[in-house]
Amino acid sequence: MGQTEAVDVVRWSDSPEGPALALLDQTRLPREEIILVCRDVPSVIAAIKTLAVRGAPLLGIAGGYGVALAAALGQDVPAAARALAGARPTAVNLARGAERVLQAYEEGRSALAEAHAIAAEEAAASVRMAEYGLPLVPEGGRILTHCNAGALAAGGDGTALAVVVAAHRAGRLTMLWVDETRPLLQGARLTAYEAARHGLPYTVLPDGAAASLFAAGEVDLVVVGADRIARDGSVANKVGTYSLAVLAHHHGVPFVVVAPTSTVDLDARSGNDIPIEQRDPAEVTTIAGQPAAPLGSPVYNPAFDVTPGELVTAIVTERGVIAQVNEGSLAALGDRLPKRDDEGS
Amino acid sequence: MGQTEAVDVVRWSDSPEGPALALLDQTRLPREEIILVCRDVPSVIAAIKTLAVRGAPLLGIAGGYGVALAAALGQDVPAAARALAGARPTAVNLARGAERVLQAYEEGRSALAEAHAIAAEEAAASVRMAEYGLPLVPEGGRILTHCNAGALAAGGDGTALAVVVAAHRAGRLTMLWVDETRPLLQGARLTAYEAARHGLPYTVLPDGAAASLFAAGEVDLVVVGADRIARDGSVANKVGTYSLAVLAHHHGVPFVVVAPTSTVDLDARSGNDIPIEQRDPAEVTTIAGQPAAPLGSPVYNPAFDVTPGELVTAIVTERGVIAQVNEGSLAALGDRLPKRDDEGS
Repeated sequence: MGQTEAVDVVRWSDSPEGPALALLDQTRLPREEIILVCRDVPSVIAAIKTLAVRGAPLLGIAGGYGVALAAALGQDVPAAARALAGARPTAVNLARGAERVLQAYEEGRSALAEAHAIAAEEAAASVRMAEYGLPLVPEGGRILTHCNAGALAAGGDGTALAVVVAAHRAGRLTMLWVDETRPLLQGARLTAYEAARHGLPYTVLPDGAAASLFAAGEVDLVVVGADRIARDGSVANKVGTYSLAVLAHHHGVPFVVVAPTSTVDLDARSGNDIPIEQRDPAEVTTIAGQPAAPLGSPVYNPAFDVTPGELVTAIVTERGVIAQVNEGSLAALGDRLPKRDDEGS
Repeated sequence: MGQTEAVDVVRWSDSPEGPALALLDQTRLPREEIILVCRDVPSVIAAIKTLAVRGAPLLGIAGGYGVALAAALGQDVPAAARALAGARPTAVNLARGAERVLQAYEEGRSALAEAHAIAAEEAAASVRMAEYGLPLVPEGGRILTHCNAGALAAGGDGTALAVVVAAHRAGRLTMLWVDETRPLLQGARLTAYEAARHGLPYTVLPDGAAASLFAAGEVDLVVVGADRIARDGSVANKVGTYSLAVLAHHHGVPFVVVAPTSTVDLDARSGNDIPIEQRDPAEVTTIAGQPAAPLGSPVYNPAFDVTPGELVTAIVTERGVIAQVNEGSLAALGDRLPKRDDEGS
């Protein structure tokens, strides 16, 4: 969250007590800034599953460091990589980060150096995405975002939020509308937390209130991150994103996805090939431990939804902007993408 | 909620302690069934403002009984009617119910009898709306609803939920999808509570997850209530309704509004003439008393939004179905509507 921040979101630690991965526990924000110190792989996996650490690019970083932790501890590194990769299914970055560090390890290179490289690359990608995305923000822009795609989700200033922060620094941001993002409130808790720290003009709203902002002409641009982008341009992102894409389309508002190429998965031909994680019903039926619905109510609680490419105005990556989102443009990008068998090239 | 229910939602009480309005405190559902006994008008107003009693037709009933309470207590009845009418601005029924009972009182008729008449008419309207709405539900129908438009919001079995219950009794309901309806969770807390008691097949979801149900072809029909319907067919209803209307339109799914004619306001020419209540930011920024967003976060928290008539497939009233929603059809309905100066005719 900028160079003035004292809190590291993900940090490798090598103290006298041994190697560890130190994570800012995002489930406690904005109330408390608590650092989770993970000294073994199961702790890292638990942190991923509970969303103490989250966000596609950041999961790639955490997955990489998790494998490095297994290597530093002299444990079964391939087993650790498999377990980490399976902790959450939708974001492709997690499996990729774990696989990439495993490959380095198996080739006799330093697992930790490879994990550091992933973190550095994602931070550099954030800077480039902000540069490429900034021209898409109009003067006086009022931007709507969903979930959290900032420093708490990615390297550097994040993905979508990096563009918003760049617009603010360029003096062209009038308002950041922040969907609270039920059920886990990553917008209200995390994006608002980052927005406040950056000094952005922002306003939090219930997800259902976004539509009336479009109707009132109060949204110039929607900017969101992604958890996985398929070959046909389908974008899996936090549940509720697709709703914004349809609303943006209906109101003639540009809908822009900001994601590093590490989130593009050309092996997924369409959105149907992207596994969508279903989460615990209790996230919906209980509020602070109290029942918010009758006991035993059935619940539909997917973590993500899929927006088809035809509703995406542009995808901003660290390698440039894809303005025509379709199989051809994604495949062309693919010529420059890392392949499964030569990750990191 | 059907004749087998022991809990009255709104009930006039005339015990040795004096006249009172007994209300089921909807803010405590589904955890507790607590009866609020209001022995004066300020208590009724407080119950309305806190949403202990809510729902457009039920507010008309509560407003009417509130005026009857002022009359029974020998208080300033016109002042009470004004204060009650102003407790919440959007639902037209509240002001109408209060005005109607005030008029009866000023004409020397029984205020209490007039309030009872409003309650009886709304219960009868619910039966007719269910009859008129049932044919709109396909066999095996999977219906999505928002907020609560059942017995906790209206007379009898409610408005939208009365149609759903009728479909269930007719054996043609496969699923009721229940939007949880942030920020106050009237869907998860109230509609799910009623659905469970009616034995309906139902599933609760975060509001943002509805879009993916449309994309998956899992919604055959959207059915919602209304807080006010303007002359041009614009429908004010719980915030998030307009989002569903756009999604239904995009996916070719019928979007049906169920509301008694007491909710139609021909004095409002368009949605712009409907005042939209803005509610306390704390409804969004705190969860069970704990901060869910950084302290002092600005919040956009409208209680309602407005869906234009062109996105409404049909409006079901107790006097029939309006299949072409526009100024002409609403105005034609108006020939049979109660007028301000001859309410109840």
